[in-house]
Formats: sequence, structure tokens, C-alpha cells
Amino acid sequence: MADNKKMNLITPRDVDFAKWYTDVVKNAGLIDYGHVKGTIIFKPYGYAIWENIQKILDAEFKKLGVENVYFPLLIPKSLLLKEADHVEGFAPELATVTKVGDKTLEEELYIRPTSEVLIMTHFAKEVKSYRDLPLIYNQWTNVMRWEKTTRPFLRTSEFLWQEGHTIHSNPEEAKNLTLKMLEVYAQFAETALAIPVIRGQKTEHEKFAGAAETYTIESIMYDGQALQSGTSHYFGDNFTKAFDIKFQNNNQKEEYGYTTSWGVSTRLIGAIIMTHADDFGLVLPSAVSPVQVQIIKIKDTPEINTVVKDIQTNLNQYRLFVDETDKSFGYKISEAEIKGVPIRIEIGPRDLENGCVTISRRDLRNKVQVKLADIVDYVNTEIVAYDAALFATALKNSEAKTFQATTMSEYQTILAKGNGIVLVPFCGDVKCEADVKQKTATNSRCIKEQKKGKCFNCNKDSELMVYFGRAY
Amino acid sequence: MADNKKMNLITPRDVDFAKWYTDVVKNAGLIDYGHVKGTIIFKPYGYAIWENIQKILDAEFKKLGVENVYFPLLIPKSLLLKEADHVEGFAPELATVTKVGDKTLEEELYIRPTSEVLIMTHFAKEVKSYRDLPLIYNQWTNVMRWEKTTRPFLRTSEFLWQEGHTIHSNPEEAKNLTLKMLEVYAQFAETALAIPVIRGQKTEHEKFAGAAETYTIESIMYDGQALQSGTSHYFGDNFTKAFDIKFQNNNQKEEYGYTTSWGVSTRLIGAIIMTHADDFGLVLPSAVSPVQVQIIKIKDTPEINTVVKDIQTNLNQYRLFVDETDKSFGYKISEAEIKGVPIRIEIGPRDLENGCVTISRRDLRNKVQVKLADIVDYVNTEIVAYDAALFATALKNSEAKTFQATTMSEYQTILAKGNGIVLVPFCGDVKCEADVKQKTATNSRCIKEQKKGKCFNCNKDSELMVYFGRAY
Repeated sequence: MADNKKMNLITPRDVDFAKWYTDVVKNAGLIDYGHVKGTIIFKPYGYAIWENIQKILDAEFKKLGVENVYFPLLIPKSLLLKEADHVEGFAPELATVTKVGDKTLEEELYIRPTSEVLIMTHFAKEVKSYRDLPLIYNQWTNVMRWEKTTRPFLRTSEFLWQEGHTIHSNPEEAKNLTLKMLEVYAQFAETALAIPVIRGQKTEHEKFAGAAETYTIESIMYDGQALQSGTSHYFGDNFTKAFDIKFQNNNQKEEYGYTTSWGVSTRLIGAIIMTHADDFGLVLPSAVSPVQVQIIKIKDTPEINTVVKDIQTNLNQYRLFVDETDKSFGYKISEAEIKGVPIRIEIGPRDLENGCVTISRRDLRNKVQVKLADIVDYVNTEIVAYDAALFATALKNSEAKTFQATTMSEYQTILAKGNGIVLVPFCGDVKCEADVKQKTATNSRCIKEQKKGKCFNCNKDSELMVYFGRAY
Repeated sequence: MADNKKMNLITPRDVDFAKWYTDVVKNAGLIDYGHVKGTIIFKPYGYAIWENIQKILDAEFKKLGVENVYFPLLIPKSLLLKEADHVEGFAPELATVTKVGDKTLEEELYIRPTSEVLIMTHFAKEVKSYRDLPLIYNQWTNVMRWEKTTRPFLRTSEFLWQEGHTIHSNPEEAKNLTLKMLEVYAQFAETALAIPVIRGQKTEHEKFAGAAETYTIESIMYDGQALQSGTSHYFGDNFTKAFDIKFQNNNQKEEYGYTTSWGVSTRLIGAIIMTHADDFGLVLPSAVSPVQVQIIKIKDTPEINTVVKDIQTNLNQYRLFVDETDKSFGYKISEAEIKGVPIRIEIGPRDLENGCVTISRRDLRNKVQVKLADIVDYVNTEIVAYDAALFATALKNSEAKTFQATTMSEYQTILAKGNGIVLVPFCGDVKCEADVKQKTATNSRCIKEQKKGKCFNCNKDSELMVYFGRAY
């Protein structure tokens, strides 16, 4: 359990960003490390953030007609081999079940790194006629990708996510759905998480294994590195051809279907931390914060308890928490700060003599005397202002860390000064991007727009303006 | 996709119960079979039932202060070996990861069959003082137990469940929680699922691997076989000793903690089917039915659509579904029946001439003309009566299939006539129960009460009245 001293154990963010990050994650009580390399245990406070993310996103999905399903954890080896690009993308990261009890299995089974191939074989059975389309499925699951370098939430061997999978009768409808889901993610990031994002298409080099087109939302963290925060893939008929998924169209002719997939993961919790948290700990956007308003009593008197009860009644639309433990007043304040609670209300005998309470906003760490009669209005106003301030600060940081360059030398000069993303003219060629990656250890984040120019790396004619930079 | 003929493809329940069960499961669109032996794919309609179960139970848990967490999927071999009884119980069923990509792992990893050992090692780190106790955790996850004989929902290699895990400072509190959770399950089964249950303790022979005491809710299916529908385990200090989990009590002395675990799984969906479904398909209790009221239009006229809109507005507290596809009227009715929708409202031009609609209850398969102005009251009343009727029918069946015997010969005579559970005096001895199992291929379901007598099998003095019988 945390003690008072622990509150001061967060490395300052500007001194060592990586260490600051893990200090925040551990000291806020979000996780513990698992036994197996690269795995984490979601403690109640960490899991509650994920539950709030799930609740909001799942409701958005259902508005769009998404149906939840559950497909098995294990994928037979022979099945994964069916789509060549797809298996190549995942092969080195696959956790493999080879036996049960003492018995060796006839065929090796992979723990799902994603479920395209399982869902495709199911679609092949379900889809006979255009009347059966579209199918718009989603599942909330655990997946495994055995990563070499891991960091809590950002990159873990096992992670929690949602994976949407759809099949359509024509490419336009599938493409529209791909973009619609990207927009669901972008809106969610910007409104619920107060994280500004850049929406765009991935280059050929960076697209998902097996996809025709990959779209992404990229966010710029406090340290200027980009984080891919959600992706939406249009597969065209790549998978339906590999899995022979045909349907009879309304002219009684057989056609291949068109598929998509889209996902966000517990990585979003990492994005929240690296966007909003500070040297005092977490700073949580109110929509996903397990506690939105925390009440701290300076003493345990009948007068104070009456005021607490009134506040609980009047603010019951919020997730409220009154810490009734015998921890010290100072400890409770530190804990509310480190856990990133948006609004903190302190009630003491001196405040009450003046008919007031003291209210603090986590981002400002201010202390404002508020009359009892004004508490509801004050909290309602401040919680909105709080989320808006988080977004504005993050946007300012993103803008300050977004640059332009036209040549490799300019690009390298910018990145030598610090992290950020840099808009450059780029030819789009896979080999050229591999060359950039090898030279600079950076890659493209996403395409901003079509525009003629000369590639910043190979100097050939280019038609794309693309963001490049360091990324998690 | 289903077609009209398929509706007649359900084997009658009294002809072949096992075949009837799989026919209902498949034709109601609940599942498809997975690639890996004994796994199932939850299709949208099947998964929606599980989502409803989750929503209700999770809210009940949270009322009792349960906090949700997530622990990793994989358990290192060395960790599982720590509690001897526990590992012995699961060893032959463990799916084992031995390599990642091409690389063989140094230590084999098991896919969790349950998470006691992972959670215990975490508790060992978290629990220092009596102030840290109790910890009341739960997780909703997938687990694997490689069963030899599998059947959808009832016994599958991978299943979905919740597993609660708690640690307390004293045995009384831990035991109380064990029993409180059993009561949550019993209430849920009886009120939300309309399934009558018997609450009781398991015998020594049947208790969970590693537990001091196991409590169960047992339900009697239509065919007279019992189904263990939920269990709650009191571990005493078995696990805290094995994992050395000590805390400082309020006298500054070190003590071992006391733990519990409790779970229900997707098996509950099997219980619903085998309790309520009939020769026409599923019959779903309203609390968990994905559709509570289905509206079927006989024609697509402006008048009919106006009435549909009114009904949608007036009954919006229910999960409503209006089938707008171009399937035939008869097909839509069959589909609503096979999917077990509690209340069906049919609206046609002739009904409307009389200012009426036709309403059917799934259990009665009746057709009642109801005046437009009376629809809301009628549906409100009938949906309550429907759930009550499901419970009453199930209870009548349970009672008709519950017997008493005092000797092995009486016991065998009863079971020779058909399935059921039989209350017998039993000594409680593990070897005696193993003998019963070997002779009769049946075992105990749970202890009803303490009462002196002579054991029905070994004829020694006994102090227990115990239910024995065939079970899933």
C-alpha cells in the first residue's frame, strides 16, 4: 500500500519521461507486473478506467448497429497460413500451444494475435446471399503478441482490446464503414479522453498485415513522440478471396464480399497518461475517471457529515467517492492527486463557519472557497472547464511539436532538437520508407493529404504530404 | 441463414433430449462450432444473452463492494505447482504454451483453468496490514479446461465466466462472504433466469480442488439430470499458507489471511435452455432475453406503421424488435418462437379494423386480441406472468424429479425408472462416495442437512442427508 513518502516518488516528467511514466503507473495503483514477461495485472483502479472506456465505446458501436460476438482464443496453425501477408506479420510473436496435459497436439494452436482468420471462416459459412449482408461484428477480448520491448499499457505481451469485423456486399459500403469507425475513434479520443488526434491513412510500409488500406488516429504525447491510438482497416477482397467467401448478388451472380476490421486497446490508457498526467501523478479526463468528484473531510463531525450527505445527494450524477478511512487529511489529498481525480472537495470546521467548502481542480491544483449553495453550479461548470482545459493544453503541445520539412537534412535537424512529428513530401514507396527508417529510426505516422512535390528522402516526384516522426 | 423448413428441424424433447438440445442451440442461432475441438463461437444472439447475464450480476456484485480486475491469461508451471490439490485437479486439462514463434520457452506456461494462484501471489504483495483487508476482486474472463466430452455451453474447452477472489483477516468474514455470494447466485438464478435451485454444500469427494468447503447451486433440468450452476468456495488458509500471505493484525502480530473464490459461467445459458425451452425452440426469461417484445407487421401500410411507432414509444422500457426484413409473415413468427422471444405482437389490417392487435406469449403460444388502448397494461402484466409461469413450471418439474431413498437398492430402483435427484442418508466418506460412483455412475450433488441415520451405501452411522443423482 502507498504511504505518504511514496507520493514524492514520482520522477519529474521533464527529467526522465520514461521513468516518470512508470512511476505514475505504479504509484497511482493502476497495475502490478505479471509473472510472464511483458504482462500486467490490472488493479481495480486501472481496470475501472478500461470499463469506462468500454461502456462509452460499446454504446457508440451499438448505435451503429454493431453486434457483439465471441470467437475462440486459439487459432489452428493451418488456418493462419491462409493469408500470406497476415501470417508473415505476426509469425514471430505467436504464443503457441503444443500440448494438453502430457499429450502433444496433432496441430499447433496459436493464441490469437487478432481474429481475422477465425471470423473469415465463420463468415464463409454464414454468408450465402446479399440478404445476409452486411454483418457488423465486434468482440471485447484479450489477445497476445509477444513483443520484445514492453511497457505497461503501451506495449504488452497480452492486452485487452475490441476488434470489429465486418463483411459487405460492395467495396463502397465497406470503405465507408472503415472511415465511419475511424471517426468514432477520433470523436471518442477528442471528447471522452480530451486527446487531440490526427486522422489519416497509413503508408504502404506501415499498413496492417493483409489490409488494402489502413487508417489511423495518431496522437502526440507530452514528450513529442506519436502514439498510434486506434486503427481501422479496409481489406477489400483480400481475405474473402483467401477464404473463398462468396455471396449471391441480387442478379443471382456469385461475388466476393468486402471486409473491414478496426480496433482500440488498453493502450488508450497509456495515451491518457502521456497526454495529461503531470509531476503530481495522473490527471484523468472526467468521462473515464473512476472517481469524478472526491470529498475529503478534515474532521469527522456531525455538521460535516450532514454537508457531505447533501453534496452526495446533489451531485449524484457524478461518480463520487468519500474516503472514510483513518488515513491523514494530507495523505488523502495526495492520493486524490496521484490518482488524477478531476474535482476534490475539502470540508473542514473553519470552512463551515464561513458557510463554505474548498474545491480544487486537479489540473490547476487551486483552492477555491465555494459557498454551500453554489457547490452544484460550481462543480458542473468546473468539470466542463477542466475537460476543455485538458484538451486545450494537449492541443497546444501537439501544435508546438508539429513541424514541416522538405528535405532529409531539414528533417534530421528538427528531430535532433527534440521529438515531434514532421510533415514532409513523400513518394510513398515501401523501399524509400525502409531507407528512412534505417537512416533515422523513425517512420511515417500517416498521410495528411495528396499534394505534388519532391520526396524529402529520394527526391523523386511525390504526390503525398506525410507525417513522419518518432513513435511509441 | 435459417429458412422456413429449418423451423421444423428440432427433434422433439421427449424423443431425444440430447439431440433436441443441440437442435435448439443451433437453430436459434446461438452458436457455431469452433475449429478447435470443444470450442464454440458465440453468435450475436447467444452473446447478447451472456451480456445481459453479465450486466445484472455485475451490478449485484458492485452493490457488495466487489472491484473488477484483470489478471494475465498465462500461468507459469512453477506457480501452479504450489498448491498440490489444486494442480492435481487441473493437470490433465491444461493447454500448455511451450514456444513463441520458433523459440522454445524456458518455462512452460498454462492457459488459466482458473486464476487462484496468480491472484494469491498478487495478494501476497498487496496485503501487509489488517488495514489492507478485505480485498474483494472479480474478473470476467475466458478460461480453458480441455474436457474430453463437450457440449455447447454445458462443457466446452474454453468458456467465459466470472471468477471472484477475496482475502479476509478472519475465517468468519471469509465464510460469510462465501455464503453471501452463493445467495447472490441463487437469487439471480431464481429471479432473473426463473430457474429454481437447491443451495447446499458439496461433499468431501466433490469439493473444488484446494478448497476447505465448496457451496453450490444445483438445478434440475427438464430431463431430471442435475446441473451445477454456480459455486462458491471457502479456502480457509490453504492458499495463504501455500503462498505465505501474512498480514499484521491490530495487535502487531503476523497472521495468515483467509480466502474465497466464486464463479458462474456461460454454462448458465445451457441451464436456461434445458429448463425452459420446448419443441418449438428457445423460451427465454425476460430479464436476459435479447428481445423482450417483438412486433411483426402483417402488411407494411401507413396505418400499421403508425401503430408500430406508438407501441415503440409506449413500450420503450423493453428491448423491442421490429423485423423490417422482407421475410414472410409465417417465417417471422417461427423465428420469434425459435428464438424464445417472451411477447410477440402481430399487427394486421383486419386486427386494426377492430382496433386490436394480436399478442402471444411464448410459453403459452396463445393468440389474444388486445385493444390498442390496452396494449401497455396487457404487456406489463403478461411479461410478469410469463416469468412467473416459467419458474412455476420448472419448480413443478424439479419437485416431480426429486426423490427419497434409504438404501442403495431403493436408490437404484428410482434411477432405473428415470433421471432425478434422490435424497439419501450418507456417511460423507470419500471412499464410500467413490464406491457409489463406481457402482452407479452417479455422484452427490450437495448436502441438504445434518441428520443422523445409516448411510444408504455403506450402512455405517451417518450424519448427513445428501442429494445424489445423474448430472451434466
